[in-house]
Amino acid sequence: MTVRLAVLGLGRGAVLTVPAFAAHPRITLVAGCDPNADARAGFGLPAYASAEELFAHGDDFDAVYIASPHEFHARHAIMAAEAGKHILVEKPMAVTLAEAAAMVAAAEAAGTVLMVGPSHGYDPPVALAAELIASGEAGAVRLIHAANFTDFLYRPRRPAELDTAQGGGVVLSQATHQIDMIRRLAASPVASVRAWTGGWDARAAEGAFTALLTFENGAAANLTYSGYARYDSDALAGWAGELGGAKDPAAHGRARAVLAGADEQTAKAARTFAAGDRVSSAVRHHERFGMLVALCEKADLELTPQGVNLHGDGGMRSIAAPLPPVQRADVADAFARAILDGESPLFDGRWGLDSLAVCHAILRSARERRDISPSDLLPSSH
Amino acid sequence: MTVRLAVLGLGRGAVLTVPAFAAHPRITLVAGCDPNADARAGFGLPAYASAEELFAHGDDFDAVYIASPHEFHARHAIMAAEAGKHILVEKPMAVTLAEAAAMVAAAEAAGTVLMVGPSHGYDPPVALAAELIASGEAGAVRLIHAANFTDFLYRPRRPAELDTAQGGGVVLSQATHQIDMIRRLAASPVASVRAWTGGWDARAAEGAFTALLTFENGAAANLTYSGYARYDSDALAGWAGELGGAKDPAAHGRARAVLAGADEQTAKAARTFAAGDRVSSAVRHHERFGMLVALCEKADLELTPQGVNLHGDGGMRSIAAPLPPVQRADVADAFARAILDGESPLFDGRWGLDSLAVCHAILRSARERRDISPSDLLPSSH
Repeated sequence: MTVRLAVLGLGRGAVLTVPAFAAHPRITLVAGCDPNADARAGFGLPAYASAEELFAHGDDFDAVYIASPHEFHARHAIMAAEAGKHILVEKPMAVTLAEAAAMVAAAEAAGTVLMVGPSHGYDPPVALAAELIASGEAGAVRLIHAANFTDFLYRPRRPAELDTAQGGGVVLSQATHQIDMIRRLAASPVASVRAWTGGWDARAAEGAFTALLTFENGAAANLTYSGYARYDSDALAGWAGELGGAKDPAAHGRARAVLAGADEQTAKAARTFAAGDRVSSAVRHHERFGMLVALCEKADLELTPQGVNLHGDGGMRSIAAPLPPVQRADVADAFARAILDGESPLFDGRWGLDSLAVCHAILRSARERRDISPSDLLPSSH
Repeated sequence: MTVRLAVLGLGRGAVLTVPAFAAHPRITLVAGCDPNADARAGFGLPAYASAEELFAHGDDFDAVYIASPHEFHARHAIMAAEAGKHILVEKPMAVTLAEAAAMVAAAEAAGTVLMVGPSHGYDPPVALAAELIASGEAGAVRLIHAANFTDFLYRPRRPAELDTAQGGGVVLSQATHQIDMIRRLAASPVASVRAWTGGWDARAAEGAFTALLTFENGAAANLTYSGYARYDSDALAGWAGELGGAKDPAAHGRARAVLAGADEQTAKAARTFAAGDRVSSAVRHHERFGMLVALCEKADLELTPQGVNLHGDGGMRSIAAPLPPVQRADVADAFARAILDGESPLFDGRWGLDSLAVCHAILRSARERRDISPSDLLPSSH
């Protein structure tokens, strides 16, 4: 028995994740939808111009992967739940917490799987570090240090991606990765968030942020992110890029010129199925998201492109996380097991709601210049 | 005319800084004091067993460099001011803010120079970055990211160095470096501090911390530090060590074993004049203190062992800061110019008081789990 999967939104997210579904023995890709005709044509499977048309042919699939723009996640997820479909929704789960809560309620009412991802919280080195912590080998987490300096703002963007109210800016889209990573390692609810956000050009309200989080178990984390395409923290990892391939050290320096020399929406389309774009099938190293070091009671765990460097009291030991046959294989597998075997996914709807609450706590703490408890932001029923 | 300088405390700090005084054409080292006879013998100049004995021969010198343990800084500085001596006092300026305020008052009453340092705030790459900001080339500072993972706790320590109440732990001794660096770059008073501190073995109450600072000009900074001798952030700079030389990648892994295999006070003495220790006179690269990236409106500035990498909109440009003839030459020179030319030093007594207030704000914020304004901690006359 396999999961028959439909893909909502044939943009960049789908390009990066569809190969994992295609490679999974228990998942069969059957359909997609996207308003862009070129994207549909490039997808290579039956595809419709709208979610409504897809669902009108809903007998053909059991589950959906929602990779539409952030502002459509809630509508598409609720539509899917009401149609009895299992749901994997891209991060951030939604724009507002009310939307996310409604998605959780809809899936619970329908009895369907609701999973959020992919995010870098699924990366195999993160999973390995979490195992080293849970097993007691590294001891309890005390302080997690995560930083990433990217070109996020200078990749081709739709206007909504640069508007916080519509789910844009770097906090909802990018902090989510760090939040999922550190929540998986800390394995404890986030108690408080104190944050600062900054924007210094016209590309977005928030192009950078820093946040100090505390967890209920007493641990803490700091997160730092910039999307300004200047300093590149992949330099610290031997130019191992976010998606698992080698990176050109000059890429950041070219980002503004490339963007200025192109029509932005055309350039964005060139990174989708519309242009026949496919990610390389060669897995050189794991997907990754900047620098992360977790200081634990017995060892410091440094995420690497290959796995984890465990820095103990007698020296450092590199522990490899096995490379997957295709990037994001674990995401596809967790979704299949949730649907077919009834295994609860780690990054379920409530997880996604909590991570989104941390994003909103970052935004609010920066505005109000005080600690925010993410749980205080949740709709009262949660 | 030269400054005749006496050194109070012939320990590790003096070993590291005395070469800069010895090399300066306008400074003449004339005397020292230390309770340890071996340290006095190794110093190579007249040295007394106590500060009282030194000051009893006070006609012989014009200025003091106070490198005694933190808990003696205030007493020695006030003694010097009352004797009309100019003062360079090691960081942290003192243990308590009341002590530091009294030192400022004593020097102001006596009309003597009071300068604080050395700290890594003097490092030539920091000075270069500050120039790139002040000149407008990099634009206004928005976010500074500083992190350092060292073996501080597992170097040989006196008991007081591990007791926060006596000026020990990593905040007073080590955060001071990061605070001086970021204050020099932000060039604005620290408005708020939200911090977390952690300790997870018997070596100190605080062996690690993280802090989010905001400045009155709207910029922010995050600081992270660990002294647990596990992960080593000098790996990120090609194993360029703190003092300007190459570092052994295995050093952290050996730190605990070396310490366990030695009498700690004997091991500590081996790093002073008592054992004839001298720092290498070869300057391979600048002194440095972990990772620091300053995100500015027009460019990101990355401190390097050689100077600054300026990451602008069109790419990266490495700018070298000229290597000094001897490390800490700028500290000696600023002190000489303050005394002989009447130039106000950047790191004067009020600067040191403010940096110490940020240290105490870190400690208090971590205890009280809320924002602390450093200025609220200053004695009321300041």
